[in-house]
Amino acid sequence: MAPPSSVPNGGAVTTGKPPVTSRVSSVYSEVQNSRLDHPLALPSVFQKPFKVVDGPSSSAAGNPDEIAKLFPSLFGQPSAVLEPSESNEPGSALKIGVVLSGGQAPGGHNVISGMFDYLQERCKGSTLYGFKGGPAGIMKGKYEILTPEYIYPYRNQGGFDMICSGRDKIETPEQFKQAEDTATKLDLDGLVVIGGDDSNTNACLLAEYFRSKNLKTRVIGCPKTIDGDLKCKEVPTSFGFDTACKIYAEQIGNVMIDARSTGKYYHFVRLMGRAASHITLECALQTHPNITLIGEEVASQKLTLKKVTNYIADVICKRADLGYNYGVILIPEGLIDFIPEVQTLIAELNEILAHETVDESGIWKQKLVPESLQLFELLPSAIQDQLLLERDPHGNVQVAKIETEKMLIQMVETELEQRKQVGQYTQQFKGQSHFFGYEGRCGLPSNFDSSYCYALGYGAGALLQSGKTGLISSVGNLAAPVAEWTVGGTPLTSLMDVERRHGKFKPVIKKAMVELDGAPFKKFASKREEWALQNRYISPGPIQFTGPVADISNHTLLLELGVQV
Amino acid sequence: MAPPSSVPNGGAVTTGKPPVTSRVSSVYSEVQNSRLDHPLALPSVFQKPFKVVDGPSSSAAGNPDEIAKLFPSLFGQPSAVLEPSESNEPGSALKIGVVLSGGQAPGGHNVISGMFDYLQERCKGSTLYGFKGGPAGIMKGKYEILTPEYIYPYRNQGGFDMICSGRDKIETPEQFKQAEDTATKLDLDGLVVIGGDDSNTNACLLAEYFRSKNLKTRVIGCPKTIDGDLKCKEVPTSFGFDTACKIYAEQIGNVMIDARSTGKYYHFVRLMGRAASHITLECALQTHPNITLIGEEVASQKLTLKKVTNYIADVICKRADLGYNYGVILIPEGLIDFIPEVQTLIAELNEILAHETVDESGIWKQKLVPESLQLFELLPSAIQDQLLLERDPHGNVQVAKIETEKMLIQMVETELEQRKQVGQYTQQFKGQSHFFGYEGRCGLPSNFDSSYCYALGYGAGALLQSGKTGLISSVGNLAAPVAEWTVGGTPLTSLMDVERRHGKFKPVIKKAMVELDGAPFKKFASKREEWALQNRYISPGPIQFTGPVADISNHTLLLELGVQV
Repeated sequence: MAPPSSVPNGGAVTTGKPPVTSRVSSVYSEVQNSRLDHPLALPSVFQKPFKVVDGPSSSAAGNPDEIAKLFPSLFGQPSAVLEPSESNEPGSALKIGVVLSGGQAPGGHNVISGMFDYLQERCKGSTLYGFKGGPAGIMKGKYEILTPEYIYPYRNQGGFDMICSGRDKIETPEQFKQAEDTATKLDLDGLVVIGGDDSNTNACLLAEYFRSKNLKTRVIGCPKTIDGDLKCKEVPTSFGFDTACKIYAEQIGNVMIDARSTGKYYHFVRLMGRAASHITLECALQTHPNITLIGEEVASQKLTLKKVTNYIADVICKRADLGYNYGVILIPEGLIDFIPEVQTLIAELNEILAHETVDESGIWKQKLVPESLQLFELLPSAIQDQLLLERDPHGNVQVAKIETEKMLIQMVETELEQRKQVGQYTQQFKGQSHFFGYEGRCGLPSNFDSSYCYALGYGAGALLQSGKTGLISSVGNLAAPVAEWTVGGTPLTSLMDVERRHGKFKPVIKKAMVELDGAPFKKFASKREEWALQNRYISPGPIQFTGPVADISNHTLLLELGVQV
Repeated sequence: MAPPSSVPNGGAVTTGKPPVTSRVSSVYSEVQNSRLDHPLALPSVFQKPFKVVDGPSSSAAGNPDEIAKLFPSLFGQPSAVLEPSESNEPGSALKIGVVLSGGQAPGGHNVISGMFDYLQERCKGSTLYGFKGGPAGIMKGKYEILTPEYIYPYRNQGGFDMICSGRDKIETPEQFKQAEDTATKLDLDGLVVIGGDDSNTNACLLAEYFRSKNLKTRVIGCPKTIDGDLKCKEVPTSFGFDTACKIYAEQIGNVMIDARSTGKYYHFVRLMGRAASHITLECALQTHPNITLIGEEVASQKLTLKKVTNYIADVICKRADLGYNYGVILIPEGLIDFIPEVQTLIAELNEILAHETVDESGIWKQKLVPESLQLFELLPSAIQDQLLLERDPHGNVQVAKIETEKMLIQMVETELEQRKQVGQYTQQFKGQSHFFGYEGRCGLPSNFDSSYCYALGYGAGALLQSGKTGLISSVGNLAAPVAEWTVGGTPLTSLMDVERRHGKFKPVIKKAMVELDGAPFKKFASKREEWALQNRYISPGPIQFTGPVADISNHTLLLELGVQV
């Protein structure tokens, strides 16, 4: 078991530089290979000649006056819709860049494939530059010229490794200048930014900057995030959400069967989604867990951690009365960010820890306000230690590192122990913790995400060809078969509001939160009492790529589109 | 978000007794429903009249004299093989019991379905009793009479919840008597025990007991365990291994794509398999990770924890030289059980902790032998605390609770920090930990496990009908299409050896460990240097139930059967 002493031929380079991460499809699995040639349908508007038609002019999601000031060149521009036409405009060769920004989401490679195919078919002689490692690739001028051979192994495959991603932003004047230099040097006609809310805000700032400088480079965004929190009427969903939820739901369904078979564990499952609880809600709709915590509801009801604990303990006690000493509980990653008292405690701790030493006798606790002290004392000691000991480089408490599912298990255990002592609970509570995260971000995209992304990319190509900028690629009518999907672009400024930061207005695309009066939440709310006490578990099973169920999308999307599921 | 206040109709009962866990297929997912009617092929021997033919007489896996003493009625009996015949023996109605024993494995429900269908088709008028909650159900006489309606929703479905399982054993004279009483009361012709090595040993003891008492009740075992450590020449694999490994490999493949896309994390993945590392080896063969630790090799090379840490750090440093600062590492759950020095330390700690108090100044450590002290000091402090603070009800250190993947991350981090200080490593190491466990035990069985289990159950029916006892249902030639599979039974005594416990010989079916000179390990060993430094990642993707790849079984099985994969 000695470490390898030499580098065999192929694959790795020996320069110390990060090598090209291109894949070798010769080592693909059978399923990966079968996906390579999965046929991708296109919306029917692309089957015939089409034109890009302007819709009504737009405003902003909030504070239009401020948005207008921040985006003087772009504000108010109309949306764009693709419509059939008599004949296609002739397509001249274009130079287009593409960049992946932020965390991975299944389908990213298909957006690029869609753009590539559009350019190949409609704008012959075009060049597609893949900027490497995210926006930093734009700033540093690091790119790969994408060819059919380069792209082929990534078709319908998960991950972002065709050109990799990064979390840098183009923010400072110097960075905008760097982007300008790259655009000029490569003579770019357009740039497609595939990213989440922040990345699309950044894309819009870049579009504004390029236009204000009279550069010809147009910028188009694409809605990416497994979290599902970048959406609006025109952009019904972000890509990756469908696949990631299906992967998590498969695992949750399996754990449910395990819970029912074993009959003695409560499984606490933490799911990705720090800012919004869409993933947790969608997984609940797919699997029917006994308890589901939705951050937005916790915040709206101003629940305390104690109340959340009691709610879980109440259900466990009622289930015990029915003879069920097992269950499954879904928890969004960002749960504690939604609990106001936790935020207060964290803020106080950050303040105290910056100035005081934490004495063993606990005198430092006197600095906490009574409510915070009470909450701190309620926390399991491991969590207390974590809050006090683990800090980020700025000295702040690392809330993100708290394993919420383990914390809740301990708090519920303590609560049930107390109920036991007064005879309200007679069983043995055993919690099992799970975190389903990374394994969902890079799965093979579902048929829905494969087609949706391909259409987003194909549509982005059409928008660029028609000279549009500052739009986000928008594919609609998603409950219908692919052929009936609509294609167009929505002004990024119309998704924006402002936030005041450091005394300045900053444009932001507001994250789409779980709407408590929206159809997905209402369906969940109407069912959860039944799911709590009875066992209505559903096991969605692994994603199937062929067969009658392969093309069905997710509950959230369908319910929001008015389809009963 | 108040807890439910009333129990709606259906599903739950209100008596406080554990309710029947029968499923409601009306709430099945589309994939679950599609699996219900998945056609199950049978080995061709069942298509025509067949007879059960005796093979050569058998011995034991070790210490045949002792096994002969322990199983005077059964020792030496021949194996059984089903062969085509002119006409079938007439099948009279039988009364058969079935029990699920131990942890869940995908396919258990299909073993029962296979038995049921055999009895329905070949022994009309038979009754199948499903003993509930494992062997305790036999002792307590708790059962469900299985009907077509009862069984139908469980066909090709994961879990054990049709009749649930349990970990009790039939051990004491009183317990054997209880089992006898149940067998007599129900007038059982036979009993099928679906379980792992321990459960099949127990099945054999029961077969011996019944025969010694001249009871008519025969006992047949079935090889179940996702761990894959119950197998021999005649029983090429245990059921559930195929599905569980494919589920884990799907997740590992996704994490690999994530690692490559992000380019900055080392993912340490702990996999189930405490006693043997078959799951880890199979997942490595399916996915090509950069590092795979195989417990059996660690034990054979008498590696220390320090050496294991150094091996990982060596590969990480070499990869850093190549520009790769990410990777995936597979770790079997039972790794530290294979490291002799850890066992010594644990034994010493158990001794010390039973008699001493652990003083904060650390004087207690002087009781450790120097090697153990050195190892203890090497461990991350969180693990030290865990060893000292968390004990089982007998006061022993809870080795099973150590999160090996997290421990290794910390140890590798420390090692790399030291190398950094002497200039041998210049990168930033970031570890991410994963444990893939419960979500694999209860997945929807793969086509292979579905068919294999159905054949195991169908064959068990044939063995019982022909009056056999003390055999384990054996289905062979598994690399061929189902029609060509062989069916028979292997004497359980032939799998047995003895272990000396409390001064007495106890029969045991030896766990099948990873053979370091077996084809699966050798294939892995021949490839791992390439996998370590290059990125040969394979993403197997989700299990597909239809299409060209749906019926392929796992690498370990195929390699052991001499098939090149």
